[in-house]
Amino acid sequence: MRVPFEKLVAEFKRVLVSLGFTDEKAGRCATIFAENSRDGVYTHGLNRFPTFVGVVKDGMIKPDAEPTKETAFGALEQWNGNLGPGMLNAEFCMDRAIALANENGIGCVAIKNTNHWMRGGTYGWQAAEAGLTGLCFTNAIGSMPPWGGTDPRLGNNPLVIAVPREGGHVVLDMAISQYSVGKLMKYQAEDKPLPLPGGYNKQGQLSTDATEVLESQRLLPIGFWKGSGLALVLDLLATILSQGNSTAHITNSKQESGVSQVFICIKPADNEYTANAIKEIISYTKSSRPEQEGQSVSYPGENSLRTREQSLKEGVLVDEKTWETVLAM
Amino acid sequence: MRVPFEKLVAEFKRVLVSLGFTDEKAGRCATIFAENSRDGVYTHGLNRFPTFVGVVKDGMIKPDAEPTKETAFGALEQWNGNLGPGMLNAEFCMDRAIALANENGIGCVAIKNTNHWMRGGTYGWQAAEAGLTGLCFTNAIGSMPPWGGTDPRLGNNPLVIAVPREGGHVVLDMAISQYSVGKLMKYQAEDKPLPLPGGYNKQGQLSTDATEVLESQRLLPIGFWKGSGLALVLDLLATILSQGNSTAHITNSKQESGVSQVFICIKPADNEYTANAIKEIISYTKSSRPEQEGQSVSYPGENSLRTREQSLKEGVLVDEKTWETVLAM
Repeated sequence: MRVPFEKLVAEFKRVLVSLGFTDEKAGRCATIFAENSRDGVYTHGLNRFPTFVGVVKDGMIKPDAEPTKETAFGALEQWNGNLGPGMLNAEFCMDRAIALANENGIGCVAIKNTNHWMRGGTYGWQAAEAGLTGLCFTNAIGSMPPWGGTDPRLGNNPLVIAVPREGGHVVLDMAISQYSVGKLMKYQAEDKPLPLPGGYNKQGQLSTDATEVLESQRLLPIGFWKGSGLALVLDLLATILSQGNSTAHITNSKQESGVSQVFICIKPADNEYTANAIKEIISYTKSSRPEQEGQSVSYPGENSLRTREQSLKEGVLVDEKTWETVLAM
Repeated sequence: MRVPFEKLVAEFKRVLVSLGFTDEKAGRCATIFAENSRDGVYTHGLNRFPTFVGVVKDGMIKPDAEPTKETAFGALEQWNGNLGPGMLNAEFCMDRAIALANENGIGCVAIKNTNHWMRGGTYGWQAAEAGLTGLCFTNAIGSMPPWGGTDPRLGNNPLVIAVPREGGHVVLDMAISQYSVGKLMKYQAEDKPLPLPGGYNKQGQLSTDATEVLESQRLLPIGFWKGSGLALVLDLLATILSQGNSTAHITNSKQESGVSQVFICIKPADNEYTANAIKEIISYTKSSRPEQEGQSVSYPGENSLRTREQSLKEGVLVDEKTWETVLAM
């Protein structure tokens, strides 16, 4: 079933206003949720909205909290998210990083005590729309063992890198686990094998069986020891730069709340060399002969853009049951 | 065979002076090569030295070239490496990024027309030694197909992230291919299977046979589509921020020279919270029960430090034949 984008925004906004969000904040949150579904990231769009509503009702997200500045030094700022809505805090921080980069060439904003930002790519697109390269990451609750270990100790700590590009920004938005817990549960529910190994079974062998991986809790970090190290250093950076909670602290609290995030923007030279270099890199990458005839190599963000265009023309694809739930809220 | 660290430095320096390096530059290059072997990164220490000497003799690396500033704006600078020794240019850039971060909280230096920096971790350790978090990356000649493609179009574009830590810095130093071409050739020469899949064979199946992977030229990016996207965005950033050569350009020139690099430093709060958070994160990670009894989980940089201590005590492990070659130079 497809629903017009504006209708999604309006319904999300109606529900959020009923929860005590101001008209302006409800509108911004509603737009981000609707955009995530519009771009095909359904897990952090409509499908996540009922959970978000529940967490607001439980008091873990404070609709009226505003970020407050803790310290500032040059092009580096630390903020406190005061447990406000993660998307609004993240959007605010990327805006600050954009302003700092426009003034100083580069800018960095770290925030503590914030909440889940939903789709990290949102803030990559935001930086790219402002003509800047953006890099941001968050820590998260522990869900993945470090390399050589068997108990989960690392978050999947998504990393986003965005480069502005005429005709469609390049936006990499990747969690550090090969498949998220949510994705594994989807394969489990559909009783389908994973296309590629997603973790280890209890016998310590690589497995494409989602049930086995969920049972062992041994999700695979991308690149084995490399992703394990990457998740660790991203948590270190997010925690110390924001002076906030680490994955250890978040996991011990049993709730994925009060997370730490970092937003960095860099201003590239806005000239012909830049435009041509981006064109050259993308077209060179796409010139690799496809593995499967008739297919082609994509850059990160290309599929989102294609889904976006279709969603705006034909309506946003929604899960009917979840949509009915939201309409009834 | 083990050789005292100082002896390695002295021999490298002697050879470099004979090639036209000033005493000071020869000393700095020699120290970096010796330190790479000392820390166990033999591929970019002694074992790489004869190749480096050859490239200098061929005129691709200019011993007397100095980096020159192209533009500066706030905490962001662009430099031209003028095809000087990559290690000296990289060390210089990280020094500038450290200075910029000390002045502005964060600093970024991009450099074009530079040469291979050998071991990327060198510059991560440098930032951490200065008490700063460091992030740097380089582009490289194409060696890996993008996800969904079969012809190599992406560099393995190493990414380094360093966090200063009392008792041993955390330094992640990772290429984006699961195994480098050099590592694959080592397994091939020893006729050993790779411990984990390192790429695809000509039939498009994941393979642990180094010969098959080298034949197909389909090296595996870490995390499949994720590493493919990461290598691409790192090349985009390095190229546009430095206004330098892309992987496309470098690959078409058939020589891995004139590469582009980026160095970013951020100054963390130097307080008890930071020190405790780092301790907590490392000890929490290490508390994951080991996969193999008697082993333990390591943080990135831990093994380098252990090898370093042993090398300084007992001498640096050298390949005898390569060492004889250097002594005879």
